[in-house]
Amino acid sequence: MQHLLRAADLSVDNIHSLLDSAAIFEQHITSRTRLDRMQGRVLINLFAEPSTRTRLSFERAMLALGGQVQTIGAAESSLLKGESLEDTGRTLSCYGDVIAMRHPTPGAVAALARGARIPVINAGDGSHEHPTQSLLDLYTMKRRVGRLNKLVVGLVGDLKHSRTIHSLVDMLAPFQPQLVCVAPPELGLPAELVNSLAVRGISALHADDLSTVMPELDVLYVTRLQRERFEDLALYERLQASYHVNAASLVGAKKNMVVMHPLPRVNELSPDVDADPRAAYFDQVRYGVPVRMAILDALLDALAADKPAL
Amino acid sequence: MQHLLRAADLSVDNIHSLLDSAAIFEQHITSRTRLDRMQGRVLINLFAEPSTRTRLSFERAMLALGGQVQTIGAAESSLLKGESLEDTGRTLSCYGDVIAMRHPTPGAVAALARGARIPVINAGDGSHEHPTQSLLDLYTMKRRVGRLNKLVVGLVGDLKHSRTIHSLVDMLAPFQPQLVCVAPPELGLPAELVNSLAVRGISALHADDLSTVMPELDVLYVTRLQRERFEDLALYERLQASYHVNAASLVGAKKNMVVMHPLPRVNELSPDVDADPRAAYFDQVRYGVPVRMAILDALLDALAADKPAL
Amino acid sequence: MQHLLRAADLSVDNIHSLLDSAAIFEQHITSRTRLDRMQGRVLINLFAEPSTRTRLSFERAMLALGGQVQTIGAAESSLLKGESLEDTGRTLSCYGDVIAMRHPTPGAVAALARGARIPVINAGDGSHEHPTQSLLDLYTMKRRVGRLNKLVVGLVGDLKHSRTIHSLVDMLAPFQPQLVCVAPPELGLPAELVNSLAVRGISALHADDLSTVMPELDVLYVTRLQRERFEDLALYERLQASYHVNAASLVGAKKNMVVMHPLPRVNELSPDVDADPRAAYFDQVRYGVPVRMAILDALLDALAADKPAL
Repeated sequence: MQHLLRAADLSVDNIHSLLDSAAIFEQHITSRTRLDRMQGRVLINLFAEPSTRTRLSFERAMLALGGQVQTIGAAESSLLKGESLEDTGRTLSCYGDVIAMRHPTPGAVAALARGARIPVINAGDGSHEHPTQSLLDLYTMKRRVGRLNKLVVGLVGDLKHSRTIHSLVDMLAPFQPQLVCVAPPELGLPAELVNSLAVRGISALHADDLSTVMPELDVLYVTRLQRERFEDLALYERLQASYHVNAASLVGAKKNMVVMHPLPRVNELSPDVDADPRAAYFDQVRYGVPVRMAILDALLDALAADKPAL
Repeated sequence: MQHLLRAADLSVDNIHSLLDSAAIFEQHITSRTRLDRMQGRVLINLFAEPSTRTRLSFERAMLALGGQVQTIGAAESSLLKGESLEDTGRTLSCYGDVIAMRHPTPGAVAALARGARIPVINAGDGSHEHPTQSLLDLYTMKRRVGRLNKLVVGLVGDLKHSRTIHSLVDMLAPFQPQLVCVAPPELGLPAELVNSLAVRGISALHADDLSTVMPELDVLYVTRLQRERFEDLALYERLQASYHVNAASLVGAKKNMVVMHPLPRVNELSPDVDADPRAAYFDQVRYGVPVRMAILDALLDALAADKPAL
Repeated sequence: MQHLLRAADLSVDNIHSLLDSAAIFEQHITSRTRLDRMQGRVLINLFAEPSTRTRLSFERAMLALGGQVQTIGAAESSLLKGESLEDTGRTLSCYGDVIAMRHPTPGAVAALARGARIPVINAGDGSHEHPTQSLLDLYTMKRRVGRLNKLVVGLVGDLKHSRTIHSLVDMLAPFQPQLVCVAPPELGLPAELVNSLAVRGISALHADDLSTVMPELDVLYVTRLQRERFEDLALYERLQASYHVNAASLVGAKKNMVVMHPLPRVNELSPDVDADPRAAYFDQVRYGVPVRMAILDALLDALAADKPAL
């Protein structure tokens, strides 16, 4: 594993190893153990699209490992546009030891990685992939439900455009999930992804009504309908109303089911769910730090032997 | 003291304790003593409105305590607007140990604090409050004039909209100051604040002419007239000319009076005052660091016992 | 040496001393030696104009020395515009130990330095100077060509507006270079600079065609034609085509010649040169870190004896 660009870059062994490592880092955080594994090393956070949550999570992870962070924001990164992404990748390799990059264009992170001499992590590229989010989602499922195999997972919202959903489904596939999609037909999983799942023996069912499938679910994964995707705002308002999850929606759900959401939420997930012990979305935020510590540690460790300093 | 949202959150005992603590930190800075009281801890500087001075001061204070800082700027914080301030507060609690927040809307910092699981410091919310500025103002007065009790304090400029003035007057009140307002009638202290002072036995006198009251003052506190507050720019120009302080204005002032200003200054305070030993405004900048070290230290120490890591 | 504002601030002895020091720091980087020479000290990176490369290079240099960095970006620095640059300089002196500043206006960095109580480094002021770039350029020439004296240096591109070229020529002058300018007449070296070179016994030749002079060159220094400088875009396109360097352009060049470029490149330097062993532009990026470590170290060391903390 030289870079982490797509969920598919991780084998099942990689995933188990990273989740085990994250569990150890979570213990270190809880006990406030001082780590200096990244002493003298620098993470470059290149966010060509603003993202407070993912950026802060990577930054805190690197600081918790004893390293430092250099940040390039959206305003500055536009300055780099004159040059090729390959040049940017090679240039940044002169300043840092690892790069986490978010970019609005699918494939842009892979282009930067082609020029880079250091590991590159995809922190979200357009509607394409967001593999580190998926890893923290799996960590949350394992911690809260107790297993990863054969989970019944309800997916609610815009499944067509969400990179979070695309990477999650891809990373879950080897664990043989039963997927239940609760989404309007025009916002279902991309056909390409459905085909790729079918090849691996996984079918994605469709449900019109969340309540009918609720009792079966181990995981209820809610995502935003992104208003900017809709030309017809009346449609947006109607859909938003029908894919709304609140405390009442959970009637009939398993006791150890978990409600997940990548946040931020707008209206699709009501704050009246927060007090329910099944709410796991703020745990996802919290688990993002040890999971990203595990990713940074694995990528830098793999290269430690043969990597020249700077 | 769990959060520091308003000047009124601090008792007289709190204030004395923080000023004593700041004096010790000032010594540490002077002697370049290495501190690691915040080792492994992270301050989140959330500035939804740009503020170089206050932001850098908090950042330097946290670094001087051995901690680290994560910054969210104005451009990014707009991204968070989709979610409630309570959600933002709860989310940021997963990354940092303490939050310093500036926001253009009065009350926004208190809203964030309701969701936060970690201490929140108001670094200025609209025209409402700016309590850490007031604490460094009191520190400067004590260091330079030698006492806090019964000071005669001249307030010059826009007293209606200045959060710096509002918090200062509130924090000074227990020390029984004599306030002398030198401001146009339409820019005097808000009626609510005047009433609240009256209840505490403090009257705010009005003076048309600074020179007549100058000999009585222990502190001359000058603030900007903010051009953007005026619809009538001719009025702005006229007022600005009449509330201008320069070296000549200090004729007749006490030898140990201090001239203070929260900076930045534009035309209301002339650079020809800088060489006067009574000029204390760059000391205010300098004292901001040990005072904010004291605040961070007190807030994190109070929670050290019962606070879970991350 | 209290500040580094212009190439001319450095004597030949200063330059040799800084290059020697940079060579030692380069060794420390390669061997990952942990340095704490700047422990507890803070660099303020004030970039009133965005510059990812130079900013990251200073930041990494300060981190590698064991220090910390506080950044003021373009968006925030506009906030400071209300106050004088002298006031900004004095204010920032209360937070940091050294300032690196980029600004679009020639002379702005010198104005800030007049108010500052701490060393100030010019990280590029408009079309005026960029002395730290020149020092890393000299370091690259010495490392790669093996000497600084009497180099034959080809300068390609917009020599009129490039601060990189202006500072480079000025810093090279004591080493008696032979300059060969390959630029359109309207974009040649400024007359003032040509005169100042003549006084020092250095002539700047002009060549219409790069290929005729290529065999003589020790250094080929390529810079961008900046599209925004041209009112006539057709002229820009024509010039860009004629000052294009690619692998074929290097036919006949010396084996130990070096091709340099301050980056970012657009079309004036083809990626097909990258694989040529004479390509030195990514080395320039890399050498920027130890060279800036040497500059920071020299400026802070010079003041260590008499500088008050904060």
